[in-house]
Amino acid sequence: MERVINFAAGPAAMPLPVLQEIEKDLVNYKGTGLSVMEMSHRSKMYEAIINEAREDLKNILNLNDGYDILFLQGGASLQFAMVPLNLANEGDLAYYAVTGNFANKAWEEAKKWLNAIDLTNSMEDKFNYIPEIPVDKIDSSARYLHITANNTIFGTMYDKVPEVPVPLVADVSSNILGKNYDYRKFALAYAGAQKNLGPAGLTIVIIDKRYLKENENKYVPTMLRYDIHSKNNSLYNTPPTFGIYVAGLTFKWVKSMGGVAELEKRNIEKANMLYDILDHSDFYIPFAKKESRSIMNVTFNLKTEELEAKFVEEAKAKGMINLKGHRVLGGIRASIYNAISIDEVQKLAEFMEIFEKNYR
Amino acid sequence: MERVINFAAGPAAMPLPVLQEIEKDLVNYKGTGLSVMEMSHRSKMYEAIINEAREDLKNILNLNDGYDILFLQGGASLQFAMVPLNLANEGDLAYYAVTGNFANKAWEEAKKWLNAIDLTNSMEDKFNYIPEIPVDKIDSSARYLHITANNTIFGTMYDKVPEVPVPLVADVSSNILGKNYDYRKFALAYAGAQKNLGPAGLTIVIIDKRYLKENENKYVPTMLRYDIHSKNNSLYNTPPTFGIYVAGLTFKWVKSMGGVAELEKRNIEKANMLYDILDHSDFYIPFAKKESRSIMNVTFNLKTEELEAKFVEEAKAKGMINLKGHRVLGGIRASIYNAISIDEVQKLAEFMEIFEKNYR
Repeated sequence: MERVINFAAGPAAMPLPVLQEIEKDLVNYKGTGLSVMEMSHRSKMYEAIINEAREDLKNILNLNDGYDILFLQGGASLQFAMVPLNLANEGDLAYYAVTGNFANKAWEEAKKWLNAIDLTNSMEDKFNYIPEIPVDKIDSSARYLHITANNTIFGTMYDKVPEVPVPLVADVSSNILGKNYDYRKFALAYAGAQKNLGPAGLTIVIIDKRYLKENENKYVPTMLRYDIHSKNNSLYNTPPTFGIYVAGLTFKWVKSMGGVAELEKRNIEKANMLYDILDHSDFYIPFAKKESRSIMNVTFNLKTEELEAKFVEEAKAKGMINLKGHRVLGGIRASIYNAISIDEVQKLAEFMEIFEKNYR
Repeated sequence: MERVINFAAGPAAMPLPVLQEIEKDLVNYKGTGLSVMEMSHRSKMYEAIINEAREDLKNILNLNDGYDILFLQGGASLQFAMVPLNLANEGDLAYYAVTGNFANKAWEEAKKWLNAIDLTNSMEDKFNYIPEIPVDKIDSSARYLHITANNTIFGTMYDKVPEVPVPLVADVSSNILGKNYDYRKFALAYAGAQKNLGPAGLTIVIIDKRYLKENENKYVPTMLRYDIHSKNNSLYNTPPTFGIYVAGLTFKWVKSMGGVAELEKRNIEKANMLYDILDHSDFYIPFAKKESRSIMNVTFNLKTEELEAKFVEEAKAKGMINLKGHRVLGGIRASIYNAISIDEVQKLAEFMEIFEKNYR
């Protein structure tokens, strides 16, 4: 079988040139006589790989030496604990903008240690929009405000980084390198790699060094301390070496595509191809409110679950897989991260038009 | 350059057939049209991979349904925290057999929450042996005794699983699948994958289900709870999917080699080739005491640091890399995990004899 078009929400499609480069060097990396997977993380050849990945990402995101990049493990889910355990002390005030399932999980986790308040919460509307941040309600003594930049399940996204009077923390798992934010506005941003960066098992943390002071919470596990990982250049223990290598190749690919600004343009074009169909049809029912729409995950329903199942099945027969919505929401979801091309989205759009003609 | 002989302590050499299989399926896994790295962790094709890996490991280790296998992240270093946070309550008594650098780190971490006592400690002798466990000193109210089955840096190993009147917890990172223990004697055993199992970033936990009760420590991060991961078949969040796939291939390779008993025989043969040279020479100085010697990491010194540097350099010129000892200990270390063949150790042995002739 040829390569499929993979609309999965994560782990997700990766750029083919990146996969081909991995394949080429899999058994013998650039004539060194071994696989990247076999390299000691303290060898010079591996240090070149991790250092280049770090510098490339800082470069892509326009970050100066005031920022550090950490290569960690545990996914966004572990960050739900690490953020409160590092940026606050027990009982401190912190805000959460609860705009989706994972935002809610982040908030629930923080409540274990902090006075964590949901400053906004769109749960009652099934998370179909991003509420505006009520800046005047913010107590400036709060340690931070946590947002989920893109809500993968619901297909909503912050179009701009909110301006707030407290440090801003963002889960950027599903739109890092796909949406062109000014990362200097974040005190901390984190992302699981498996959507736009590389394989699952690598987590990237971007942190303004002013928030990197020594962790005084003596009960925090060593592996959950940002200060420890930063001091050791993400080599406190063995990091996910192969995932970092793949992420590094992806950063090179992002550069070759013209950087995040160019990819964002392409992503807007891709998303609009689908939203245009949703907006000019009563056959497809868009889920997210217009002003909150994601350019990474496009969510919609059909009139019946049977029709949705048929849609997923017929698309699959045409080589377009993983279009079923998340179990929390149901319906259809097309995740169109950086690795998905305009042509591939065009194929989905054409399929949607034919499917509508056949079943309206 | 041809493939080198890689004596690294971890990340370490992997079996060539495993690497070749990964290479073959890298871009398009068995005709499915996508890479394993791109598979949704909730897809049927990925579930087949993780379930087969779990069953194969249980099978290899002779474990019945009373045991669970968890595929986690964070390395042994995160287990240093997870063990006390899951198997005990704050202030409880737990024992540590401190037989090396990582054993000591595990003990230090546990002291954050528990009354953790070093039941044995060979630090004064630079960890050059494994002290016997003083069973009569054990208070049976202790939650567990933690041992480090193989001390990678120092080249020492428990030849037998100690019999103790409290639950036994073992860090088996550097001899799992290389040394044939009876795993039913452990309440819990854990291993970072990067020595005998696969790429760094995957951690395997083998747990007797009787120790899997609901975690009542409400301040424990969700991602650090064994009960949560077990209930969700290691799919609570996105696991390190590619690492699990590679570990699964390694389990198949272990089976094809005749299982752990056969590999242990081969490892003993390999280790003895090197120990024989050390024991019949006054040019090489073995580090570990005879009765505590590891079959995975062989450590020794030469008379001067200059000679050691020359040894490492000349070996490298002959395609044998990563023979320099760990920075904590210095000297020479040859790590000869499962993936290193008898022929490859033979080459090192021959080199050692020639080097001795040239520089004695």
